[in-house]
Amino acid sequence: MSRAPSLPPAARAVLDHDRRSLARLISQVENRDRRVEPVLRALYPHTGHARVIGIAGPLGVGKSSLVNALLRHLRGMGQKVGVIAIDPSSPFSGGSVLGDRIRIDREAGDDGVFFRSMASRGYAGGIASATREVARLLDAYGMDLVLVETVGSGQVDVEIRRVASTSVVVLVPHLGDEVQSLKAGLFEIADVFCVNKSDLPGADGAARYLADMASLSPEEGGRWRPPVVTTSAIGPQGIPELWEAVLSHERFLDSDGRRADGERDRVRAEIGDLVRERFDRRLEATLAEDPKLRALVDEVLRRRIDPHAAADRVFTEIARRA
Amino acid sequence: MSRAPSLPPAARAVLDHDRRSLARLISQVENRDRRVEPVLRALYPHTGHARVIGIAGPLGVGKSSLVNALLRHLRGMGQKVGVIAIDPSSPFSGGSVLGDRIRIDREAGDDGVFFRSMASRGYAGGIASATREVARLLDAYGMDLVLVETVGSGQVDVEIRRVASTSVVVLVPHLGDEVQSLKAGLFEIADVFCVNKSDLPGADGAARYLADMASLSPEEGGRWRPPVVTTSAIGPQGIPELWEAVLSHERFLDSDGRRADGERDRVRAEIGDLVRERFDRRLEATLAEDPKLRALVDEVLRRRIDPHAAADRVFTEIARRA
Repeated sequence: MSRAPSLPPAARAVLDHDRRSLARLISQVENRDRRVEPVLRALYPHTGHARVIGIAGPLGVGKSSLVNALLRHLRGMGQKVGVIAIDPSSPFSGGSVLGDRIRIDREAGDDGVFFRSMASRGYAGGIASATREVARLLDAYGMDLVLVETVGSGQVDVEIRRVASTSVVVLVPHLGDEVQSLKAGLFEIADVFCVNKSDLPGADGAARYLADMASLSPEEGGRWRPPVVTTSAIGPQGIPELWEAVLSHERFLDSDGRRADGERDRVRAEIGDLVRERFDRRLEATLAEDPKLRALVDEVLRRRIDPHAAADRVFTEIARRA
Repeated sequence: MSRAPSLPPAARAVLDHDRRSLARLISQVENRDRRVEPVLRALYPHTGHARVIGIAGPLGVGKSSLVNALLRHLRGMGQKVGVIAIDPSSPFSGGSVLGDRIRIDREAGDDGVFFRSMASRGYAGGIASATREVARLLDAYGMDLVLVETVGSGQVDVEIRRVASTSVVVLVPHLGDEVQSLKAGLFEIADVFCVNKSDLPGADGAARYLADMASLSPEEGGRWRPPVVTTSAIGPQGIPELWEAVLSHERFLDSDGRRADGERDRVRAEIGDLVRERFDRRLEATLAEDPKLRALVDEVLRRRIDPHAAADRVFTEIARRA
């Protein structure tokens, strides 16, 4: 698509492969700074090339080392790769816990790699919106692939399905009983299973178990059965096989209009998340500023009205102003 | 407060200490079934007696055994206690992973105890709303205390501060490096630290470390410094001391209007969560039903408009209908 002459300078800088502009825009997206919105909107017609691949799993399964090995493999194949690592963080301190410091060696002056870690602060929809928009900036910058690595488990991992076309779930041969129980949720988001740390005892058994579980799902309607790959950071081992498994799912998506269905679902989720963000901003402003509405809180505290009645009044007020 | 003659039968049943009605209403709250709303509203003036205490911490620190020991201690003191255990769960399967099965022995025919586990499905605000409303049902039922136990870490644990007046953060002497990094978020929500499994080596060192961290916060303005208690399920040990630490924070809240400030913050958060739920229902209905809005998704997919433009149109449409 040709570049419109009216493109904002920051948007043009991304298309012109300016790394510092890219970094600055990503920070604005991460901070949900609305000034980035016109740039994102101008860049949107220039996106759609990069594939977004999710790498999810519980803490301690070695996702970072795995992503590093995958990155080297993909660079060896000439692919340009962006990495977004979502770190668990406190909504109070706001900062990313693991930080960029330990990752910086991944780039090492290679212009075909861009690494960024983001804190998973705020509500789940917020991180999904930010991840999508950073992925789109990396797409406009010229990356072929965007790997989204989620540290943690549960809600944030599941959000990856709202962003990525293929999700890899990484596990290790032995996890504690309680962490193991979390696998129920991870099982449902997996397009590919990766049993990492395959040098540990029990790896083959874990892989067989996952393959058995995957084969239980009905084959009818051409449903996808997640392949199981074993990998190890020692060597490393199994990385080409892991990537081949990802590509096999991507090829599956390209058959029978499945990719279009997935994209439709993701765009619908994206619009929903953005509408929710708009409403949240309005709600916070309304609750913070309007003395009439602040007085409602006192009435609830005195038990003159109940919280649902107060919520109805606030909702009506926000709608009236919109 | 006298019971109004117009009280819905289900609300009257809770005030009349009907255990089965209570259980049924809690299920409705958990499912965000709107039919429970009139009951909650009618009961609201009959609540405000029970104190809500949060017990948070990472997986595997022994929170369930600790809560069991605390429950026995509190029952021995004649306190009636409700327990809400929030379990990690998959938003897809919806079910609670750990389940009620393993907890049922806690009640053992004792009418002064009511135990309920809830799945932490949906967005973070949803679980906070459900927890508040279940706590209020337990309050109306006549409980003196409601213990909210959160399994997991991160967002859900932090939500406990929006519900409980005192939050206990439970840790163990040694956690993995990555889990340890999550402590940053947990540190900020703690009113009381509990180093559980004090029979393990390193417990004294961990307690000293936490006490040192707590003493770093400025004393000015009469700020609270979280006490550190060591406990063990073997014995059990340290349970009366743990409860005394909780009560010391509750007494601190009763000085200088601090409790009123906290309640105001919690009511404000509650109204916000309920308004957000109302908006979410409207949004989902709008996205699902309106063909004009569904066509927007296609325009975004064809890159004729961008997701932010689509979100603006949906937001305007919802406000117009409200």
